[in-house]
Amino acid sequence: MRKICVVGIGAGDPDHLTLQAAKAIGRTHVFFLLDKGEAKASLIELREGLIRHYGHPHKRIVEGRDPDRDRTPADYTGTVADWRHRRSLVLEELITEHLKDDEIGSILVWGDPSLYDSTIAILEEILQRGAVEFEYEVIPGISSVSALAAKHRIGLNRVGRPVQITTGRRLAEGWPEGVDDVVVMLDAQQAFTAHPDADIYWGAYVSTADELLDAGRVSEVAERIVETRTEARERHGWIMDTYLLRRPEVE
Amino acid sequence: MRKICVVGIGAGDPDHLTLQAAKAIGRTHVFFLLDKGEAKASLIELREGLIRHYGHPHKRIVEGRDPDRDRTPADYTGTVADWRHRRSLVLEELITEHLKDDEIGSILVWGDPSLYDSTIAILEEILQRGAVEFEYEVIPGISSVSALAAKHRIGLNRVGRPVQITTGRRLAEGWPEGVDDVVVMLDAQQAFTAHPDADIYWGAYVSTADELLDAGRVSEVAERIVETRTEARERHGWIMDTYLLRRPEVE
Ligand SMILES: C[S@@+](CC[C@H](N)C(=O)[O-])C[C@H]1O[C@@H](n2cnc3c(N)ncnc32)[C@H](O)[C@@H]1O
Ligand SMILES: C[S@@+](CC[C@H](N)C(=O)[O-])C[C@H]1O[C@@H](n2cnc3c(N)ncnc32)[C@H](O)[C@@H]1O
Repeated sequence: MRKICVVGIGAGDPDHLTLQAAKAIGRTHVFFLLDKGEAKASLIELREGLIRHYGHPHKRIVEGRDPDRDRTPADYTGTVADWRHRRSLVLEELITEHLKDDEIGSILVWGDPSLYDSTIAILEEILQRGAVEFEYEVIPGISSVSALAAKHRIGLNRVGRPVQITTGRRLAEGWPEGVDDVVVMLDAQQAFTAHPDADIYWGAYVSTADELLDAGRVSEVAERIVETRTEARERHGWIMDTYLLRRPEVE
Repeated sequence: MRKICVVGIGAGDPDHLTLQAAKAIGRTHVFFLLDKGEAKASLIELREGLIRHYGHPHKRIVEGRDPDRDRTPADYTGTVADWRHRRSLVLEELITEHLKDDEIGSILVWGDPSLYDSTIAILEEILQRGAVEFEYEVIPGISSVSALAAKHRIGLNRVGRPVQITTGRRLAEGWPEGVDDVVVMLDAQQAFTAHPDADIYWGAYVSTADELLDAGRVSEVAERIVETRTEARERHGWIMDTYLLRRPEVE
């Protein structure tokens, strides 16, 4: 039976790699790279470094052309589903063509595969089509959320209270109900600026060499963060940032 | 300057350890063990194994008597605050007595230090008292939430949608507003049984040798999970379990 490993590699620091992930990389015969086109420089470099460092000398690396994706679609969920579908066809072909029986193929995933990542859904779609058979396993990784919290030295939740992880798109529709602590990912619109009374713990390129951190009452630091963010985004050509918004305790 | 490392060690599998955490353990002069009294067997074993394996030959290990804690208090937050306070006094004394200038002391934390863990708050309380000075750093770890998701091979969120992480105590007050995906920790009361129409992805002792996993529509699997859980809890004398509750898509 062919086997596929979905390997979480952490959020930027090569030392985020777990021993379990390093061992999985070492056992891998074929690495599937799917997102060369859209991947950010840091992701490409980190991944290549890890493969070089922990990979088997006879490993193979195969690349699929990543299907284009509409970045500002009207129907977000539909567009993502369609993009996943096309991606699943690309990966299916790579698996059929390059992964022999009893071999292990790996897909290295940024952060933790359980957070805003499509790899598992894509593998499920391939299995459901039934044209190719394989087993697969998921190896957890340090998420950008854990990395952010560690750098700010904060807990995500307060004692006995919940925390919600959501997207910039959702936050732009309003502060989520029932929570005072909100982690925001995938925010292209700086939705935090609408919440001046909250505290923000912000980080971009967290745990990479380009890391930027800032924190404070939104009313006091929002402008500075927006400026830093715009400037960094121009310099790098892209940005990945995450933040925790925290409603201060009422005394 | 003295330095303290708060090191996330993952949720049970020794191979959850990150390279960053292994290096931190290797650099550590003094390990502070605070929760010997209340810690579960798995935690003690994992921690001791990691210290033995990655620790410096001349490391020291010092233990503090963990203050007793009321497990079923009426005023949950107040009781936790009081317990943290007493714990901070114990740790302060250990640091003052055992950590020399320019030495590194580490506290190994189960899972990820940012989720339902008090270590960071305790260090902040000690620093605020001002009786002892130190720098400190937090090293992220694989949380039980990431470990659970990996074993079930699921994403925590659905495309573009939020996920909330909360406690059994909170879930018992009702399904949280505004989310269809809820991760529940610290649930001593099997609060999931009140949500028969949800899907559950449940795990106990996840990624340890005693791991138990189950999944399905709550109406169909709740009884089985409650039985498994009760039986395992009796056998081990304690249990740690986490689950994702997911409202099925409306077709
Ligand atoms: C498609 S999601 C993937 C998340 C990933 N699976 C994880 O566990 O972090 C991409 C989003 O993750 C966040 N992100 C990923 N890496 C980051 C980093 N190093 N610093 C800050 N944010 C990061 C950003 O919010 C970005 O928009
Ligand atoms: C005090 S919290 C600590 C959480 C930890 N910091 C983490 O990141 O997983 C303890 C709770 O974590 C969950 N937990 C920790 N380890 C677990 C494991 N191996 N399997 C299942 N649940 C676990 C349980 O819900 C337990 O009640």
